[in-house]
Amino acid sequence: MAGYKNRVLRVDLSNGTLSEEPLEKALIQEYIGGRGFGVKLLYDELKPGTDPLGEDSEMIFISGPLAGTNAQSFSRYKVFFKSPLTGTYFKSCSGGHMAKEMKCAGFDAVIIKGKSDKPVYLWMHDGKYELKDAAYLWGLDCDDTHTLIREELHDPNIRMGCIGPAGEHGVKYAGIFSDRRACGRGGGGTVMGGKNLKAIAFRGHQKVELADKDAFAAAVKEQIAGYKANPMFANFSKAGTWIPEVTNTLGMYPTKNFREGMVPNWEELESSEYLKLLVRKTGCYSCMVHCGSITKIGRTKYAGAWTEGPEYETIWAFTGPMAKADIGLTIAADKLCDDLGLDTISTGSTIGFAYELYEKGLITKKDTGGLELTYGNSEPVMELIRQIAYRKGIGDLLAEGSREAARRIGKDAEQYAIQVKGLELPAYDPRGAKAHGLNFLTCPIGADHNTGYAPQEIFGAPVPKEYDRFTPEEKGELTKWNQDVTAFLETGILCSFMPSMGMLSDEVYGKLLVGATGVKEFADPAYLWHVGEKIFNLERMFNVREGFGKKDDAFPRRITEESVPEGPGAGQVFEQEKMLTDYYRARGWDTETGIPTEKKLKELGLGFTAGK
Amino acid sequence: MAGYKNRVLRVDLSNGTLSEEPLEKALIQEYIGGRGFGVKLLYDELKPGTDPLGEDSEMIFISGPLAGTNAQSFSRYKVFFKSPLTGTYFKSCSGGHMAKEMKCAGFDAVIIKGKSDKPVYLWMHDGKYELKDAAYLWGLDCDDTHTLIREELHDPNIRMGCIGPAGEHGVKYAGIFSDRRACGRGGGGTVMGGKNLKAIAFRGHQKVELADKDAFAAAVKEQIAGYKANPMFANFSKAGTWIPEVTNTLGMYPTKNFREGMVPNWEELESSEYLKLLVRKTGCYSCMVHCGSITKIGRTKYAGAWTEGPEYETIWAFTGPMAKADIGLTIAADKLCDDLGLDTISTGSTIGFAYELYEKGLITKKDTGGLELTYGNSEPVMELIRQIAYRKGIGDLLAEGSREAARRIGKDAEQYAIQVKGLELPAYDPRGAKAHGLNFLTCPIGADHNTGYAPQEIFGAPVPKEYDRFTPEEKGELTKWNQDVTAFLETGILCSFMPSMGMLSDEVYGKLLVGATGVKEFADPAYLWHVGEKIFNLERMFNVREGFGKKDDAFPRRITEESVPEGPGAGQVFEQEKMLTDYYRARGWDTETGIPTEKKLKELGLGFTAGK
Repeated sequence: MAGYKNRVLRVDLSNGTLSEEPLEKALIQEYIGGRGFGVKLLYDELKPGTDPLGEDSEMIFISGPLAGTNAQSFSRYKVFFKSPLTGTYFKSCSGGHMAKEMKCAGFDAVIIKGKSDKPVYLWMHDGKYELKDAAYLWGLDCDDTHTLIREELHDPNIRMGCIGPAGEHGVKYAGIFSDRRACGRGGGGTVMGGKNLKAIAFRGHQKVELADKDAFAAAVKEQIAGYKANPMFANFSKAGTWIPEVTNTLGMYPTKNFREGMVPNWEELESSEYLKLLVRKTGCYSCMVHCGSITKIGRTKYAGAWTEGPEYETIWAFTGPMAKADIGLTIAADKLCDDLGLDTISTGSTIGFAYELYEKGLITKKDTGGLELTYGNSEPVMELIRQIAYRKGIGDLLAEGSREAARRIGKDAEQYAIQVKGLELPAYDPRGAKAHGLNFLTCPIGADHNTGYAPQEIFGAPVPKEYDRFTPEEKGELTKWNQDVTAFLETGILCSFMPSMGMLSDEVYGKLLVGATGVKEFADPAYLWHVGEKIFNLERMFNVREGFGKKDDAFPRRITEESVPEGPGAGQVFEQEKMLTDYYRARGWDTETGIPTEKKLKELGLGFTAGK
Repeated sequence: MAGYKNRVLRVDLSNGTLSEEPLEKALIQEYIGGRGFGVKLLYDELKPGTDPLGEDSEMIFISGPLAGTNAQSFSRYKVFFKSPLTGTYFKSCSGGHMAKEMKCAGFDAVIIKGKSDKPVYLWMHDGKYELKDAAYLWGLDCDDTHTLIREELHDPNIRMGCIGPAGEHGVKYAGIFSDRRACGRGGGGTVMGGKNLKAIAFRGHQKVELADKDAFAAAVKEQIAGYKANPMFANFSKAGTWIPEVTNTLGMYPTKNFREGMVPNWEELESSEYLKLLVRKTGCYSCMVHCGSITKIGRTKYAGAWTEGPEYETIWAFTGPMAKADIGLTIAADKLCDDLGLDTISTGSTIGFAYELYEKGLITKKDTGGLELTYGNSEPVMELIRQIAYRKGIGDLLAEGSREAARRIGKDAEQYAIQVKGLELPAYDPRGAKAHGLNFLTCPIGADHNTGYAPQEIFGAPVPKEYDRFTPEEKGELTKWNQDVTAFLETGILCSFMPSMGMLSDEVYGKLLVGATGVKEFADPAYLWHVGEKIFNLERMFNVREGFGKKDDAFPRRITEESVPEGPGAGQVFEQEKMLTDYYRARGWDTETGIPTEKKLKELGLGFTAGK
């Protein structure tokens, strides 16, 4: 079976038309794939000021150039859209098995615009595609949606990204779920819901064609040898992202809405405890790391609860914000979010925001329908998750995310919304890891940890050199480094855990890309770094065109003015102004406006964005 | 792939041993298969007085001689055990796709005894078998159990029978679930739970070997032509068992614990309403009828609820007993029972029993934890189902079934437990359909509708002749007829809907059996009737050996003394004594004791049971 590959499908849900076009070679040459394609296509296609939930919005699904091959940790997909939560450019990413099916069905990208007048899903298989009725799926959770689509199409091996009730109800941080893996952040599921698009399902039997089979095979061999030689490989295979003991010990596990840095009884969250709950390891297509896991609780009031995960951010999301380390509740809440289609980070953080408002008396039992949101009591979390997903009771307010909920409540509340550009902070206190903080501030999608993760500050990674986690010095250059390396590795699309652990050299990555695409330039690390920086700047320019600038690179005052009361990070605040200036300088951006200079843009081949 | 077929697997869970043996030819000759094998094996193997939940209990899974072939409506499995709910012999049956996988894996029967000291599941595939750890599955619902076993074994096409939390918690009417189809009645799931057996999973690629391929193919052709020529085929394909309008119109839709015969607003349950909820039709392996359905509610407070079904009995179970026709609640409750692993009939009826106790003041709000069990309010049903499955609150009592719950509450309550031999009555008022009632009374497993369904009384089926539904006259002979025909068709194992609709002649059935097995005698309808009667009498003798007799063929006094107040059946009671005598006579049983005479037993080749 062949004859269909490297295609782009365009879908207009408003009139139900579907058409295909080939991938442009120039796009590959200049942007490699993955995140490069995504930002370029979205920049070109989306008019500034477009309502993310309106008829003119677009979303783009992309499988990378190495998806479906036996290269390791590359069978991932990315989704690009303007976020209804942040109003910025947004990218969201997930592993699992969907990218492989998409790629082997012949497609590198699906560009979806318009809005269907009734629920539909998109079905793409072996070069074919059609929109199908999804009225019967509307209202179903993600798990049942998978089951019923597979039954309808008589193929249990179909993979899909779908939304749950949260996406249907317009919760601003609804995700896209493929089996139990999520493109969680930023409201990709909300955009799908706004388009009446319940799912996008794939099945493909085509082998991915490679430009140079032998060179590719040799590069894969080198990659695998590199994995095995890296001591992080065994560690990460064993316990994945189960690192609450690391961040609690460092005193930077955000607790009580980022007031404290250690959660009481965090020992319950140690990896040795996790290993007791582990049912089995899981992994993505063509990834030997198998960092995922099925876990299950056999005790406590949540006996029988299970989930895939929880990953570190989710463990935190249902413990730190409530100041209660109950792993049973965490596992149950994680599964419930997966079923209902919610991003766990924004869900947990927004609930944590509500806990502080409750403490401060800005909301009361009357607002919560009787739920007592007191620190140390995480029991209301399950009910709050349901209320958020269905926009019932106080859930209707919390479904807006912490920033917008605070706006609606009134001025005093805004300081308690711990977010940047509307995206709730993940589980690293910026005051305890300054490059993390600087990345949260300047990341084009808001406070995201994956876009420029600083392993130097958490795991002491010695590349490019060693850094003190508290010092603001030299963090501009470091953050640029982390962000740019991530950007070019996400063209692949490499799993973001791998660069954090130094598990793939630029050289081997380049060989894989050349073997797959035949573009010789990709062999040159300098070229890859150039593309990475170009992508990051283009993302910035997307936001600049939407009106974003330095004013939006800002933490709430808790992070910049209040210090953590005790622990290793006691006394630290985040030196926002100083660090931003340092960063803008490292980036070659105007230090007053936070906008890339024309010189920098031209140097990167982004002259077309200047002045937009 | 071949070399494994017609095998019997013996499993001893106490010591973990598994061994296989061939099927005995004499057993095929004398009992054909299916229900014939089940009763003979269980009679031979199970010592009288065995505790169904003790270490000595056995359960037998059987796929029929026609499973996995292209004969229609035969790919079903049966499970045999002594029931923890009734203390009688028990058989339970289900369609779906599991029997095909079991048969194609090479097995006609699996005999399971003993008790594992930790949770296990049995995995059988292509002639191989092993016990696998199920600790990680304990506590999971049926749907998740399917998902995780399929993921563990990397084969989404595996089929299985499993239990949910209800079976684990020893609810006396826990079922066995394969996808969303149930071996619901009598506590097969309870027996599995008692054995620490979470599931039995199958996958097979073998083609079923046929004694005479050409003759078999011709018989299948004849069967299919017969289906198509039968007007019931189109009807039944369209709406399945969606017949509440029929029984409400006849005034025999048991309402308020069998006090009334029509539920208020039953129009909401009409098949025209059902068609609005229909998502799509579903069917079993190799059955062109596709009587099943996926339904979903898009309105009411249960918006988004969906299920496979509900079948007629389930529609009734969550409407009649509560005197409230809410199809949204019914769909949600059906799915919840499927997930938690409960028989819907006994669940709904036992809840209905609690409603009457609440009305009579025998239980109060204190007992129900605040739930108001008032007629016309079916909202508490969802919570009661959860409490039953996990044996929480009043659920712990109701989990015993209505008869035992009544015993524990005290003498006055027993009259309100509407059951025979401990098995709750299904959705036909015996006073409005006397042959149905007589079957409920004398069926070896308690008040079951499928074992001797009387289509003559509901659909006016003219075979063997026409009958008035209210008259007690000649119902003994008719009931024997219905029970015996069902018994021999369940050797096949034919779906019990087909005989009710006259969709298969004895002759064609005989040809299918001969084509598959090569046993010429099966071509003779008289031989088939003989085997049917023999099976039914052997089942009776199993119960006699356990101490059952005429005293146990008894309805509670509501059925025999109280009459339905209004509607077409007003004034009717069930003439128990007279009808039993008539029936025993038709059966050749002693009219004083209800025990088959030695003469009858010898005539049937069951001399070995006499005096036991």
